[in-house]
Amino acid sequence: MALGIGDDCAIFRPRSTREELVFTTDMLIEDVHFRRETHTPAQVGYKTLARGLSDIAAMGAEPRFCLLSVAFPKWASPSWIDRFFDGLLALARETGTQLAGGDLSHAAVFASDITVCGSAPTGSSVRRSTARPGDQIYVSGGLGGSALGLATGKGAAWKRHLRPEPRLALGRYLRARASAAMDITDGLSLDLHRLCLASGVSADIEPPPLFRGASLDQALHGGEDYELLFTARPNRRIPAWFGGVALTRIGQIRRNHPGLIRLQGEPLAIKGYDHFS
Amino acid sequence: MALGIGDDCAIFRPRSTREELVFTTDMLIEDVHFRRETHTPAQVGYKTLARGLSDIAAMGAEPRFCLLSVAFPKWASPSWIDRFFDGLLALARETGTQLAGGDLSHAAVFASDITVCGSAPTGSSVRRSTARPGDQIYVSGGLGGSALGLATGKGAAWKRHLRPEPRLALGRYLRARASAAMDITDGLSLDLHRLCLASGVSADIEPPPLFRGASLDQALHGGEDYELLFTARPNRRIPAWFGGVALTRIGQIRRNHPGLIRLQGEPLAIKGYDHFS
Repeated sequence: MALGIGDDCAIFRPRSTREELVFTTDMLIEDVHFRRETHTPAQVGYKTLARGLSDIAAMGAEPRFCLLSVAFPKWASPSWIDRFFDGLLALARETGTQLAGGDLSHAAVFASDITVCGSAPTGSSVRRSTARPGDQIYVSGGLGGSALGLATGKGAAWKRHLRPEPRLALGRYLRARASAAMDITDGLSLDLHRLCLASGVSADIEPPPLFRGASLDQALHGGEDYELLFTARPNRRIPAWFGGVALTRIGQIRRNHPGLIRLQGEPLAIKGYDHFS
Repeated sequence: MALGIGDDCAIFRPRSTREELVFTTDMLIEDVHFRRETHTPAQVGYKTLARGLSDIAAMGAEPRFCLLSVAFPKWASPSWIDRFFDGLLALARETGTQLAGGDLSHAAVFASDITVCGSAPTGSSVRRSTARPGDQIYVSGGLGGSALGLATGKGAAWKRHLRPEPRLALGRYLRARASAAMDITDGLSLDLHRLCLASGVSADIEPPPLFRGASLDQALHGGEDYELLFTARPNRRIPAWFGGVALTRIGQIRRNHPGLIRLQGEPLAIKGYDHFS
């Protein structure tokens, strides 16, 4: 940044016109996205940024900087606030994302909003609207872990719910390989439905890989897995693993019936999380 | 935008490296920044964006695009939500600010956060940290209108509170003329104190111009005027008016005592609005 925190605006100087910038913004709200009884302040800080980074990963971009708006309620003590920033800044450092500015306020409940800017070579960002009939459909990792964790509150699944990992390295790897991509935030069925709608196509899938202990229902419809859902042209070789994360082919893109998902040949109900359903 | 609403991220392609980008983010929260009993949904939408645009104006930049995060509470009917977007989008159109993306959620209270990106020739953005001893201090318009409006709930002052005008044209005009600038959001005393702290200087001022009917106290310490506070080198001619808005010299920057403000020679108490005071 040419100028970080402290002025009316942060200033960013593009290095070259051969790079495009991608932008995402994501809220994290008490009693909607987390509960203070079950989440430490550092986990809330981590998740605030992780949600935005997951979108940057889904575009195949590299995170550059972020802006944080956060409203603290009365119950947030100075030490809670410190640890919130510790959690957020640790992830920011780890991923090379500079905190460049923001806005502080108070509110009846905790609410944060993160804006993340990433960059990628111009024209290389991976969209969700560019899947074509015949493309193979893949997911990273095992699905349903976050939903299982939310249901049981323990073990690896609970840890997954608390600390989802933005798939930044995988996203960059897929930049030259995927025909379309998005992150799975609201459940596979709803997110694949959205990818298909955006691309004007339908999808035939098999049961996806399960996070250890998760049910098929949790894997199909559970939210907040933050794994990547992507497609690749039929002749494109996708490895079974990337950086310790499994990449599993779960089906194929079909023409017609935009948005329709078939699981083992039967239409699948779209049941993921929707704030306005 | 190369890509607007609908994907994981919006995509922006810088036109040239001769342009720098400026970024700001501002929250608007029910019962903190507005009350639903007194603000129409269109006014809430307008103000959500106007707050961000005022920061863009303060840098002397031109608005390019914005990202909107908004959480609606249960009381927000579909028609309230429609009119909120009407108010926001009308101002976006009027100022050439494209709504490029965002995040929708729900919450116990209404909360919005706007991120605005603006652009300016590289190196020309006006900061608050570059005032120098001897510089003249100016404000646009009359101060205290928003505080007066909040106190009386009527007349031109109430309208000013509801519909502050981001000084975008003035900001661009000042780009080549001001030595430092910021917008007055938390009251003249606090914001001038901040400008002086950032620049490592102090200030001697006379009573500022009053919004019609406002008291000196409201003009010195009332928030949300969204006028511009700026400095100019002593030999720089600043006109008395710009685009129908008065530009009034209120004092001079002095060396030493960073942050100190003297009103007619006496130290001024810093009493503007601070979320964490």
